Amino acid sequence: MFLFRQIFPLVEGLRDYKGIDFIADSIAGLVVLFITVPQVIAYAYLAGMPAEAGLYAVIVALVCYAVVGSSRTLAVGPTAIIAMMTLEAASEYSSPGTAAYGHVAMKLGLITGMTLLLLRLINFGAIISFLSHAVISGFITAAAILIITNQLPAVIGIASSPATDVVTVLQHLITGFRALNPATFIIGGGTILLLIWCRFGLANQLEKIGLSELLISALTRSAPMYAVIFSVLIVFLADLDSTNAVAIVGHIPASLPTLQYLDISMAEIKMLSPSALLIAMVVFMESTSIGSAVASKRREKINPNQELVGLGFANISAAFAGGFPVAGSFARTIVNHSAGAVSQVAALITALLVVITVLWLTPLFYYLPKSVLSAIIVVSAVQLIDWQNIKKIFSFNRIDAVTFSFTFMGVLALGVESGVLIGIVISFVLLIRDSSKPHIAVVGRWQNTEHFRNVLRHEVETYPAILSVRIDESLYFVNSRYIETFLLNKVADSPALEHILLICTATNFIDISGLEMLELLDKNLQEVGVTLHLAEVKGPVMDQLGKTDFLAHMRGEIFFTTDIALHELVNKHD
Amino acid sequence: MFLFRQIFPLVEGLRDYKGIDFIADSIAGLVVLFITVPQVIAYAYLAGMPAEAGLYAVIVALVCYAVVGSSRTLAVGPTAIIAMMTLEAASEYSSPGTAAYGHVAMKLGLITGMTLLLLRLINFGAIISFLSHAVISGFITAAAILIITNQLPAVIGIASSPATDVVTVLQHLITGFRALNPATFIIGGGTILLLIWCRFGLANQLEKIGLSELLISALTRSAPMYAVIFSVLIVFLADLDSTNAVAIVGHIPASLPTLQYLDISMAEIKMLSPSALLIAMVVFMESTSIGSAVASKRREKINPNQELVGLGFANISAAFAGGFPVAGSFARTIVNHSAGAVSQVAALITALLVVITVLWLTPLFYYLPKSVLSAIIVVSAVQLIDWQNIKKIFSFNRIDAVTFSFTFMGVLALGVESGVLIGIVISFVLLIRDSSKPHIAVVGRWQNTEHFRNVLRHEVETYPAILSVRIDESLYFVNSRYIETFLLNKVADSPALEHILLICTATNFIDISGLEMLELLDKNLQEVGVTLHLAEVKGPVMDQLGKTDFLAHMRGEIFFTTDIALHELVNKHD
Repeated sequence: MFLFRQIFPLVEGLRDYKGIDFIADSIAGLVVLFITVPQVIAYAYLAGMPAEAGLYAVIVALVCYAVVGSSRTLAVGPTAIIAMMTLEAASEYSSPGTAAYGHVAMKLGLITGMTLLLLRLINFGAIISFLSHAVISGFITAAAILIITNQLPAVIGIASSPATDVVTVLQHLITGFRALNPATFIIGGGTILLLIWCRFGLANQLEKIGLSELLISALTRSAPMYAVIFSVLIVFLADLDSTNAVAIVGHIPASLPTLQYLDISMAEIKMLSPSALLIAMVVFMESTSIGSAVASKRREKINPNQELVGLGFANISAAFAGGFPVAGSFARTIVNHSAGAVSQVAALITALLVVITVLWLTPLFYYLPKSVLSAIIVVSAVQLIDWQNIKKIFSFNRIDAVTFSFTFMGVLALGVESGVLIGIVISFVLLIRDSSKPHIAVVGRWQNTEHFRNVLRHEVETYPAILSVRIDESLYFVNSRYIETFLLNKVADSPALEHILLICTATNFIDISGLEMLELLDKNLQEVGVTLHLAEVKGPVMDQLGKTDFLAHMRGEIFFTTDIALHELVNKHD
Repeated sequence: MFLFRQIFPLVEGLRDYKGIDFIADSIAGLVVLFITVPQVIAYAYLAGMPAEAGLYAVIVALVCYAVVGSSRTLAVGPTAIIAMMTLEAASEYSSPGTAAYGHVAMKLGLITGMTLLLLRLINFGAIISFLSHAVISGFITAAAILIITNQLPAVIGIASSPATDVVTVLQHLITGFRALNPATFIIGGGTILLLIWCRFGLANQLEKIGLSELLISALTRSAPMYAVIFSVLIVFLADLDSTNAVAIVGHIPASLPTLQYLDISMAEIKMLSPSALLIAMVVFMESTSIGSAVASKRREKINPNQELVGLGFANISAAFAGGFPVAGSFARTIVNHSAGAVSQVAALITALLVVITVLWLTPLFYYLPKSVLSAIIVVSAVQLIDWQNIKKIFSFNRIDAVTFSFTFMGVLALGVESGVLIGIVISFVLLIRDSSKPHIAVVGRWQNTEHFRNVLRHEVETYPAILSVRIDESLYFVNSRYIETFLLNKVADSPALEHILLICTATNFIDISGLEMLELLDKNLQEVGVTLHLAEVKGPVMDQLGKTDFLAHMRGEIFFTTDIALHELVNKHD
């Protein structure tokens, strides 16, 4: 039973579920529906998929995640960034909009889900630690620009094939500007203005008439739904569709998702895996970021391992339902939380309402102009660009600024995958560059106490024959060469030196490179008449050294404290 | 003048040069000659180049390094590993032995040299910190096996084209075994036995007749020269060359190196750069390892930055002289050091003697069987395999054993470049996997003192409303997510908690990811009524935080010591 509850956190979450909780969840589920439907159709188009793919993906992802995911309020489904990454990855192998393309996108979702489960199996959720804040920020900012340029032609009514390359899209925009479609331009532009006004102007108006904060939030965040309703009415009343004046969504099949047969070959797995790995990392990163932010507001916690399972199954089920990769949505999760969702039941209710929409309400979306959906995407993509944050990165430290810039430029110039890879490599190269020069302090006794301080900062007592050195790091391959060079140079510079004392207070582990360095150092020092001693070696490090013959070969001693070491070494000389 | 001495360490090195030093250097220079000539011709063949390419490369590399390098005794020139890497890289673009191939190898040397200079310019010698001991060891072991299988056909007289692929070579060996050339087999096999006997048997014999250690070392290490002399005499006297019974070195042009015109295109730079970068890393790693080992025996030091310059120019000059990439040779440097070299003058004398050899003594090598050279390579490659070291890696820790295995298998199966790259990636993935979970200790006051210890190991005083946590790491992108999750989970688990005190004694820096984490953590904690405080923040970290508005937004305080912090926080509650 305990195991069962671990595998299905929903069971645990519903232990004390009450009637009032169900009412709260139902309200939240309904509010989330209004933002979900326009978004998932829009993101399906962005991903190069038909509208129903987004609807199917969100239905099964919501249900699946509610059962096995660990967050109570995360709203899983298509998101802008993941849709963009899907388009980039799948369009390499097939033309967006075709049936073959749909299968590539589904397989991508399947491999993404399997990758997430694999990361759980090898217990390696820490893989997202590879993505530094600067890399994520550079990637999201550039991806937002890619999304905007990708959608702008549709907003203003210029025919353009889906492209992930900024330069190509800008060329389409410029060359196609003369062929601009006036009706589309007015509807698309009007939608953008409406959405911006709802975000900034509407809230003020509603505050003035004294509505509650919760209601204001629900009303302003439902803006995409107003745009949908207005534009459908306009197209219908002005008969814009029969004149082909605007591109509309058209017929969406009124049927539930069916199980797709995904005939996946080893070659396809190999081909799609690099993209799927990166998408899985971003899915996990996006979802746990928003998931833990919301959980902490409620003094709840999420379990990263369980998240890998939840998101993995959500992606696999979305793929088999004919969808594409899914993640925790920032906007929909915030709405779910602030609309008062208590448990995963809210997500199940949203899913149920999407099912009802698919079965009976799709005719309502027949007249929906595609430019409205593109406008919704553009406005939400603009919100992904966080100027404050970028400013902070550039003012805080040079390394993060460099990493951000390379990631940003890389994503724009070479695409998401290459750009993020460049960012990861650069962040590690810069980290190693710093870590390879650990802080090493030559220390001396401070005012006849048992305290030892840096000779550069304090007036301390030292002896010409003894060098006491505190290394503020573990001894491992990244820094062992530097430490060796530092000590050998000290020996070359100090002819009177006879003892080196390494104070290991900050050494948490030693790897084979560190051990090799110690052994070689000890041997080389012995040859020139200098003895190497250690002090304050931590327990686990002593255990590691005990496995080797280093301690047997070593001429010097291992002292319990620096104080004892200095006393004994000084006495030897008296 | 100071700058001049910095650029040309030779000038500084010769400040107190005496007549007796010159005699010592002359002896060492002559002893090194005997091992140098057979080795560089052998390595030239290994690299797929003509014999003179090795001789030219060693002449200019020795002179160039003597003038600008920082080690007094490093013997620079062709080495087995670098020759092997040259063969692998250049044979991708051209057939070994052709003139076009020669140009590719020269260009590879040129780009390698430029890469080394570039690493100096961007001050990034630390790049070799990427190569952990386990990666280097796995790479060297596998490369030795590649070299041995590559040379074995020539030793036993089977026709075989140079190949870097173990399976192909083994196939050659098996299919070609029937066509084995008896004369070659006897000479090649005999050389191997002679070399092994010189290494193990000869030293004992010489000790018995009471020779000095220095003389024994010089005599045993000159074994390749005896093999050369014996085999030349045998071939000449038995007239084996005219009957085509054995492949011989033949005519070596008796002329000095001339300046080669290297017409290098951007496409070639792009094509060869990845190989050149890896070769440059290995050149630098090999050279500084042996260079600093010898320097430390003499209580001297080498300057890694100056080494990049010295090795860079040595490679560039070797390329323009018609050679191929060069590095510090392990064997020749040891001989130089133990033969009593005092300064760089020894290398200049070796270079002069090689010039004399090239101009007047090459006819002596006309009858030299190629199988002798291959046997010399095989014996020196066997010595690259360090069983003791491999045993140690496998007994010391699992991470290093995994890294070694993947590098070793990668190099054998996919070649040096892919193998080393796999090794580097794996060593970092495993490092990050560990670093992403830093040691975090919940601490309490120990026996009414000012000392605070881990609650898990000591009986300490704690308070339900206060959590004092010591994070034994800097706050940066690799670990910030883990730390955040750890603290938020503590909050979720402890309803009475009101204050979190982060003790920052081990926090040496904060990057933007760490800052972002602190800001978000502080905000989320405020929302659930918990206050975040910091204690013992180091000066540089305070400076970093001062640049942001974190301190202004933070509700908690920054305490000078943990002791003060606990007193004040406890008093607040009383």
